[in-house]
Amino acid sequence: MNVLRHPNEWSKPIGTTVGFVPTMGALHEGHLSLMRAARAECGHVVVSIFVNPTQFGPNEDFQRYPRNEQRDLELCGEVGVDTVFAPDVETMYPRRTTVVAVRGVTERWEGAFRPGHFDGVTTVVAKLFHIVQPDLAYFGLKDLQQCAVIRRMVEDLNFPVRLRFCETVREPDGLAMSSRNQYLSPEERRRAALLYRRLRECRDEAAAGGSLAASLDRARIALEADGFAVDYVAWVDPVTMEPTDRLQPHCRLIAAVRLGGVRLIDNLGLDTA
Amino acid sequence: MNVLRHPNEWSKPIGTTVGFVPTMGALHEGHLSLMRAARAECGHVVVSIFVNPTQFGPNEDFQRYPRNEQRDLELCGEVGVDTVFAPDVETMYPRRTTVVAVRGVTERWEGAFRPGHFDGVTTVVAKLFHIVQPDLAYFGLKDLQQCAVIRRMVEDLNFPVRLRFCETVREPDGLAMSSRNQYLSPEERRRAALLYRRLRECRDEAAAGGSLAASLDRARIALEADGFAVDYVAWVDPVTMEPTDRLQPHCRLIAAVRLGGVRLIDNLGLDTA
Repeated sequence: MNVLRHPNEWSKPIGTTVGFVPTMGALHEGHLSLMRAARAECGHVVVSIFVNPTQFGPNEDFQRYPRNEQRDLELCGEVGVDTVFAPDVETMYPRRTTVVAVRGVTERWEGAFRPGHFDGVTTVVAKLFHIVQPDLAYFGLKDLQQCAVIRRMVEDLNFPVRLRFCETVREPDGLAMSSRNQYLSPEERRRAALLYRRLRECRDEAAAGGSLAASLDRARIALEADGFAVDYVAWVDPVTMEPTDRLQPHCRLIAAVRLGGVRLIDNLGLDTA
Repeated sequence: MNVLRHPNEWSKPIGTTVGFVPTMGALHEGHLSLMRAARAECGHVVVSIFVNPTQFGPNEDFQRYPRNEQRDLELCGEVGVDTVFAPDVETMYPRRTTVVAVRGVTERWEGAFRPGHFDGVTTVVAKLFHIVQPDLAYFGLKDLQQCAVIRRMVEDLNFPVRLRFCETVREPDGLAMSSRNQYLSPEERRRAALLYRRLRECRDEAAAGGSLAASLDRARIALEADGFAVDYVAWVDPVTMEPTDRLQPHCRLIAAVRLGGVRLIDNLGLDTA
């Protein structure tokens, strides 16, 4: 497995399909499932490990975001990754004078609660796509709005890459895997699983034909009773990220909550287990 | 010569160098010199012809910008272009939700007089680079700040393309070739050549060791006496586009003037003929 520190060290192999999994490291089973999907589909798998400062707000957790490169590289090796690209911040950002900004689909939800976040995401993904030049790129559906934003950017700017979005991987108690779960105290970690339970209840009520608005109200009240501060709970169209009041097969139920100092997001489709 | 209307019709040829000349059509010798440079250096030459609406301001000349595709295609054929990409506006912009924006180098000069112009340029060039996937791309130095903006975008976003900037081609009387010269009345067309003469005088004064500020003042006064409204005349660093008061070998003298309703820009280096 090659570990590259600078874009110049990479030249795209000819005659094989390059699959790319961009990550911020602190790898967990969610990331590994993306790498395995890439491994199954592509001749050459590239993983990037880069904690991107431009997608963190000034009061967010850039400094304390978990970093464990040695363990990450071991996991990449175990999954059969061919190339890891792990640059430092100065290599990726000698300047920060160019921004790729997506409008519309970025405005609600995470975009509203984390101003500037998606500009940081789209800019670094554009850079990584140009560096790696993948044929396919893999993203996890846990970050549903990020998937919508990347899809829109790729379409709007005609990036020559196909996108694959893969289902969220969960802990045995249902909590969506996230590098930030490490921030939870043992008591918070136990409680965190209730987010998934409340979303399932809400989804099942809606699927059974109940009122969407009433089920969302009940979910919010239940989450607050569980000790979460609720940023949002909503049914959305996963392409436009607009809220919907008419359930269609592709709609997703999304939520963001805070537990102590930790922010958790999750989402479910109508047929998500 | 292939003429393509949709990105899907293009697949980058393998094993040869692809050279790309983006244009807005109304081709003149300036464009042809870029195409000949690409022809001499590359195995496959692609020219795009697309009058990009997003780089025109609301009070600018998008509607009346000269269009003559039949003649453009003939000229491309004569120069030996392999592929012309000539999409329509709906094909290029089913949506306008993503913008590539360069800061800093875009702020003065054309950026100040044409708000939003460079966002339109960088966004369409990013799209065209993704569609064509050139190894080399050719731009004319007449649009000096555009060259600086594209260079910055390519560096900041790690585009896998090398840039070539080619010297301005001039009419026999010195007027820089531009599709917009067609807007000039015969009387204005005669007068327009004075822009180049005044810039040469100013450049030669500075090269002879005179005060930069004094020579710029004299140039402005002379241009106004010639009947031009002067938007700016300045010595700049062509990479940062910052004004300079210390002449260095790579510095350029830039100017933008208006004559009747027509805006003219031009620039000279210390060794430009």
